[in-house]
Amino acid sequence: MSHNLLQGKRGIIFGALNDMSIAWKVAEQAVEEGATITLSNTPMAIRMGDVEALGKQLNAKVIAADATSVEDLQKVFEESVDALGGKIDFVLHSIGMSPNVRKKRRYDDLDYNMLEKTLDISAISFHKMLQVAKKMDAIAEYGSVVALSYVAAQRTFFGYNDMADAKSLLESITRSFGYIYGREKCVRINTVSQSPTITTAGSGVKGMDNLMDFSDKMSPLGNASADECASYCITLFSDLTRKVTMQNLYHDGGFSSMGMSLRAMNQYSKGLEEYTDENGNIIYG
Amino acid sequence: MSHNLLQGKRGIIFGALNDMSIAWKVAEQAVEEGATITLSNTPMAIRMGDVEALGKQLNAKVIAADATSVEDLQKVFEESVDALGGKIDFVLHSIGMSPNVRKKRRYDDLDYNMLEKTLDISAISFHKMLQVAKKMDAIAEYGSVVALSYVAAQRTFFGYNDMADAKSLLESITRSFGYIYGREKCVRINTVSQSPTITTAGSGVKGMDNLMDFSDKMSPLGNASADECASYCITLFSDLTRKVTMQNLYHDGGFSSMGMSLRAMNQYSKGLEEYTDENGNIIYG
Amino acid sequence: MSHNLLQGKRGIIFGALNDMSIAWKVAEQAVEEGATITLSNTPMAIRMGDVEALGKQLNAKVIAADATSVEDLQKVFEESVDALGGKIDFVLHSIGMSPNVRKKRRYDDLDYNMLEKTLDISAISFHKMLQVAKKMDAIAEYGSVVALSYVAAQRTFFGYNDMADAKSLLESITRSFGYIYGREKCVRINTVSQSPTITTAGSGVKGMDNLMDFSDKMSPLGNASADECASYCITLFSDLTRKVTMQNLYHDGGFSSMGMSLRAMNQYSKGLEEYTDENGNIIYG
Amino acid sequence: MSHNLLQGKRGIIFGALNDMSIAWKVAEQAVEEGATITLSNTPMAIRMGDVEALGKQLNAKVIAADATSVEDLQKVFEESVDALGGKIDFVLHSIGMSPNVRKKRRYDDLDYNMLEKTLDISAISFHKMLQVAKKMDAIAEYGSVVALSYVAAQRTFFGYNDMADAKSLLESITRSFGYIYGREKCVRINTVSQSPTITTAGSGVKGMDNLMDFSDKMSPLGNASADECASYCITLFSDLTRKVTMQNLYHDGGFSSMGMSLRAMNQYSKGLEEYTDENGNIIYG
Repeated sequence: MSHNLLQGKRGIIFGALNDMSIAWKVAEQAVEEGATITLSNTPMAIRMGDVEALGKQLNAKVIAADATSVEDLQKVFEESVDALGGKIDFVLHSIGMSPNVRKKRRYDDLDYNMLEKTLDISAISFHKMLQVAKKMDAIAEYGSVVALSYVAAQRTFFGYNDMADAKSLLESITRSFGYIYGREKCVRINTVSQSPTITTAGSGVKGMDNLMDFSDKMSPLGNASADECASYCITLFSDLTRKVTMQNLYHDGGFSSMGMSLRAMNQYSKGLEEYTDENGNIIYG
Repeated sequence: MSHNLLQGKRGIIFGALNDMSIAWKVAEQAVEEGATITLSNTPMAIRMGDVEALGKQLNAKVIAADATSVEDLQKVFEESVDALGGKIDFVLHSIGMSPNVRKKRRYDDLDYNMLEKTLDISAISFHKMLQVAKKMDAIAEYGSVVALSYVAAQRTFFGYNDMADAKSLLESITRSFGYIYGREKCVRINTVSQSPTITTAGSGVKGMDNLMDFSDKMSPLGNASADECASYCITLFSDLTRKVTMQNLYHDGGFSSMGMSLRAMNQYSKGLEEYTDENGNIIYG
Repeated sequence: MSHNLLQGKRGIIFGALNDMSIAWKVAEQAVEEGATITLSNTPMAIRMGDVEALGKQLNAKVIAADATSVEDLQKVFEESVDALGGKIDFVLHSIGMSPNVRKKRRYDDLDYNMLEKTLDISAISFHKMLQVAKKMDAIAEYGSVVALSYVAAQRTFFGYNDMADAKSLLESITRSFGYIYGREKCVRINTVSQSPTITTAGSGVKGMDNLMDFSDKMSPLGNASADECASYCITLFSDLTRKVTMQNLYHDGGFSSMGMSLRAMNQYSKGLEEYTDENGNIIYG
Repeated sequence: MSHNLLQGKRGIIFGALNDMSIAWKVAEQAVEEGATITLSNTPMAIRMGDVEALGKQLNAKVIAADATSVEDLQKVFEESVDALGGKIDFVLHSIGMSPNVRKKRRYDDLDYNMLEKTLDISAISFHKMLQVAKKMDAIAEYGSVVALSYVAAQRTFFGYNDMADAKSLLESITRSFGYIYGREKCVRINTVSQSPTITTAGSGVKGMDNLMDFSDKMSPLGNASADECASYCITLFSDLTRKVTMQNLYHDGGFSSMGMSLRAMNQYSKGLEEYTDENGNIIYG
């Protein structure tokens, strides 16, 4: 049920790994909506994942690149403009990784070289992408750029570690660059703050299952899926959202506006109701 | 260039007055996108404005109603469900008015009966609308409800007066009811916080022209128009945004994320650059 | 261990009922810090509570007043200025009540007369207080006004009902009036968003005990007590915070900046760990 | 007029350069309030500035340290605990510098080595400070740590450049570490988001004078001074604010809650009123 929302548009999707990836879903839906795209990921991810298959499926060139390398990013934009036959209309940044999380360093025992890598991969890569694109004038006027974020940028979740700081930095870069790219080329830049999503990238975070259960029960609409996230990204790439920029947009079933839901509280309270009589009735005081 | 985003959907648009109204544009675009709709406004507004003409143009029943009256709102939903042949998929609330602003009462000299009216018309009407709809089970599952707001709900603008408080209340009702309607019927409820827009409703606000100039120069993409706002609302009514709820969504060219832009500062500084020499060069200290 | 932070200052404390009230603690600490004060509450609350005893203890005149009545508020300021011998330096607004909560009306079944009362008592009373004071020029330059709020103004808590909307309105009034009273008289106006606190007022809220447990386990420093809240209010009344205005200040042990804590997650997960083997080990998968 | 608010407390003040520095004022007031302190800054700053003189005046040991060096920070905490005779009760982080700003690199032409330095000096140094302190257990229970920030962390100001991103990162670190240090040692960590202040550090920012004028006219109480900021920090170091943590606290005369003030709009409109008749009356088209 395509709406041709991206008819004639050209896009670059960074970060698709396999069919659990949000970027994968975005790529599929973008093409379904009429776009032509290229795909980019690291050489390692391309070897390990299924992105080549996706490229074939979507008739999309796959460009290996390290998103922390300015040179590699130049190559991605050059080859994409070439392959797609014109300036880029939309870009998805779905890139994040914390060596500290991988190495199970606690937040009060960070390795600072690793922290630098976390920030470089997960946030500064976004600045590099935008700076490279702007210098090359590779993004068309009224283009749209989206990066994926998480509510940990605003509120602390145990175990999310230095990725929270990376997401805060990512959202700040979105605003800072959104101002400049907006005023000069009408390019809009936003982050989508997505529900916790089971992807390969998300799997390193501690206690993920229970957190997802909490998030789901807190959210009146439940956790948003990768597919739903992709649909939302499509609206942000379309011409229907041309004046939305410098925003962090929650796509989370309402989680970010919840303090406590009845469903989550019922679950929370289970462990509290420890005193029941022989008939299973709760003994209050 | 319709995308049939609302194909088969039924909607109610509250608050269209004339072709400057955001609600008017939403009505037009919704029908263009495949929806069938009804229109509602007060008897007075229907007499004074052009909504009957719009109804003819869009083949939409016009239902007179005072949005502060529970009975009238029941009538609107009943007649809409009847006229459209099923439950409602989307609703736009574009209603706001402050008797204190109209009567030029200052914020430190409010008339409290008028404040009650401001809140009832501009905010509580939204609760009434939702409560009526929910009791009648008149909104379809995964329906979408949008109310229009303004950044004055977060930051004080001189002259915006008690409308700021009304908008804060409106956004709170959006969250509070969004939780309940979401968990029970998957209905999502959001506000769109729109750039200042020249409409009949906006014309009572003091110093509107200069404020719009400031807002425009602060916003990297400039002020968003009524037409652009309507397009954005369409995305929120569509199935592509099903997990967005309880949010206040800025559609403002970036204004809300700006502290100071170069363009606005240049304008601001004009009056400051009072000391120039005979050649027109600025004398710095 | 008084610091004489309020030496020579005159204050009015609205809302002390008994020694569980935050207002009660503020009154005690304010006097300990060198202030002279008056106390105000409704005639009913004065009969039911212990405020007369507090007045004797603190040598403070008790002034019966309905805070929704402009006339009564005029009386409070007049009599306070008289009794204390000069303009008022600080005011505490600790007033809130929802007839809908008391009558167990659900948020999707509100009685609108009751909602009007909720807003009038819990939020508009603050505007009336400020408008009366400003018209009488009853607050000294650089005076400080604080109202008590709760994070439900930003995020939805099940069962908090229309009090959430009232708190949002209260915080908006704080900004709107803070602008005017600040620019004209350097009076600062803020809200303190306090942890859930066991007071007589808080006792109507559903599932309060479990919510307090959740709030306590989410907050790295635990819930803030009424006494601690009073200490914080003292700093806001003192001359050390003269440039803080129009703010909502969280005094909540960190709750507002938390997404999920380990302690709360451990509690939450208890009910989830249903599958253990005979040795008590959890069976995953 | 000391209140002995910090009687018996031990503190470390990072970042005092000369008597325009906020850190300088904090040091003076902290000692006046009964604290004993040490001062730290870079060897270069100590040579260039007047911090040795301040040390003499306040009887405070001056410890040269590069705040990006874990080893140097260990030395600061060790020597401070030694010199002051016990664990540290409060710490001020007033450190920030952007080589990109200094070298006049535009935000869309950043040097990435310089960006790394900006982040390391202005934000990550705060994490290092906290991690070092926690590993050494050098901060007493219920200690208080404050870092200075600016509203550019939330909203984009032209010319503030990568310092905006650094401040966002700083505030995120405040939350992330505030959770851990709070739950384990009841240490509270906050940022104070201060009005633009004329200091040596602030002098590199473009168009500072006009921005300060705008900020002053937008703020109902005007810009907050360095002295006033120091007073506010004192309250945060005191025992009166023990449950405030993980917060970004605006000390800005109300700026952060303003959308547009009448005073600022009057200034802004000067350049707009270009069309006046021969009598100086404005001609509205």
